[in-house]
Amino acid sequence: MSKNLEISKLLDFYGILLTDKQREIAEYYYNDDLSLGEIAENLDISRQGVRDSIKRSETVLFEAEEKLSLIGKSEILKNSLEAIKRNITAISVENEMYNNSAISHSTEKILNELEKLSEI
Amino acid sequence: MSKNLEISKLLDFYGILLTDKQREIAEYYYNDDLSLGEIAENLDISRQGVRDSIKRSETVLFEAEEKLSLIGKSEILKNSLEAIKRNITAISVENEMYNNSAISHSTEKILNELEKLSEI
Repeated sequence: MSKNLEISKLLDFYGILLTDKQREIAEYYYNDDLSLGEIAENLDISRQGVRDSIKRSETVLFEAEEKLSLIGKSEILKNSLEAIKRNITAISVENEMYNNSAISHSTEKILNELEKLSEI
Repeated sequence: MSKNLEISKLLDFYGILLTDKQREIAEYYYNDDLSLGEIAENLDISRQGVRDSIKRSETVLFEAEEKLSLIGKSEILKNSLEAIKRNITAISVENEMYNNSAISHSTEKILNELEKLSEI
């Protein structure tokens, strides 16, 4: 069982699929970097209980990504939104020559949509 | 227990979270419109077994959307991609006046990204 960034990311995406107790333990372990012993003491449960909970949570988290691929899709979305933004900026720069208000209006609208999508 | 489009959509998004058997039964029921009796006969299980499986699957599917909101997010994404496409088309139309190749290149790149995103 190794602590790593990947599981913190899985927790961000799929933590909601764990029970409240599993999530609490996993967040202590992966996000706050507490040891099994420290978590056991904090929650007044056995060290083995903490270990079992973390192993169970890892299984749920890895299976969720294997089935739903939300992290993979989120990367594709992020890269595409950045590419669109770069190209909109390029269009805006070119449009400075023409000062075409219809083009400015459209680039503005697209930037608003990109802003909206950066939050989903 | 009512058959409806909403559950077919939930099945598209979250069917992978069901067991193979649950998914098979739910697809017969919601996508192929078979009756409980017909499914029971096809699979050689009891009508009550079919009913229980469908109820269990509905719980999993509704909870998944409640927790992950993928259908809601997918709607937002779809609407935003359409808005971006409309505005790119407007830019292309305006650019016919200038025939600016840098703008054409950028609109082309953005359309490619939109194409990519329509598949995730």
